[in-house]
Amino acid sequence: MTKVILYIAASMDGYIARKDHSLDWLPPAPDDDGDFGYKAFLAGIGTTLMGNNTYQVVKGFGEAGYPGLTNYVFSRTAHAPEDNITWVTKPPADFVRQLKATAQQHIWLIGGAEIIKALYEAELIDELILTQIPVLLGDGIPLWPASTREAKLELLELTDFGGGVVQGRYKL
Amino acid sequence: MTKVILYIAASMDGYIARKDHSLDWLPPAPDDDGDFGYKAFLAGIGTTLMGNNTYQVVKGFGEAGYPGLTNYVFSRTAHAPEDNITWVTKPPADFVRQLKATAQQHIWLIGGAEIIKALYEAELIDELILTQIPVLLGDGIPLWPASTREAKLELLELTDFGGGVVQGRYKL
Repeated sequence: MTKVILYIAASMDGYIARKDHSLDWLPPAPDDDGDFGYKAFLAGIGTTLMGNNTYQVVKGFGEAGYPGLTNYVFSRTAHAPEDNITWVTKPPADFVRQLKATAQQHIWLIGGAEIIKALYEAELIDELILTQIPVLLGDGIPLWPASTREAKLELLELTDFGGGVVQGRYKL
Repeated sequence: MTKVILYIAASMDGYIARKDHSLDWLPPAPDDDGDFGYKAFLAGIGTTLMGNNTYQVVKGFGEAGYPGLTNYVFSRTAHAPEDNITWVTKPPADFVRQLKATAQQHIWLIGGAEIIKALYEAELIDELILTQIPVLLGDGIPLWPASTREAKLELLELTDFGGGVVQGRYKL
């Protein structure tokens, strides 16, 4: 079955970015031998999902949408077309429910906080691959803002990548 | 050197208790063979530190202070003496700084959130032993409320206890 996978890094105090969306606290770009499982993960992915805030950050890295993938960017307002991405103005949960029924490969939920919360509360996230970075930021954008949903997770895999970076793969 | 060790369990969304201080989401009391490292940890401890809120919860479990240890309970107001605990009305950071200089065995910082924050910001916590419970609570008392301090952690030990329970031992 096609899965929606939240593959994301967070600080030990649960932030996915600083308040200004910056990611300067992430470890340096990993080399070929230590990519935190990214390449293996990406091989199974056909589609990405992003909120517009996150997309603007990703675009700042010089890449507008992941090449070879279908990249959906959610925004409440209409935008001019851009190469390699598809704007979505529908409510995320409705859209993703339909997408899951037809997509052939797994769906990478990139972020940010707002779309994660919407899809989590709609019970549309199947798997969480959480890379914990050994830093306490003190403040930022939380991965898990307050929610009325409570959920048990099942740990499928635990990897110690060295340097204090630990990745857990959980089934929701 | 005598260390202040924060040995604590948290949900995956970083809560140490529900809003009403309840801990019903913790896994069942572990047996002799699977105590999440508690007995080995306790063997090195001579002193415990607790806020009064946490103490009232611990007392609800029927145990008023850990037998054989010196148990300090912090409160801004004076209290009638109780068996096996010592009330402290001094500011936690001042008290703990003095205690570290004289204590012979390690100091277990039990909680809760308020005293953890005070000692964290005063850079008085030497080690964090964090047991992550595979549950998202949605709301509760956060282990790391917003703070102006930013800190890197060093992972010393990682243990998979099964059932999705993962414990990391970090140097601050």
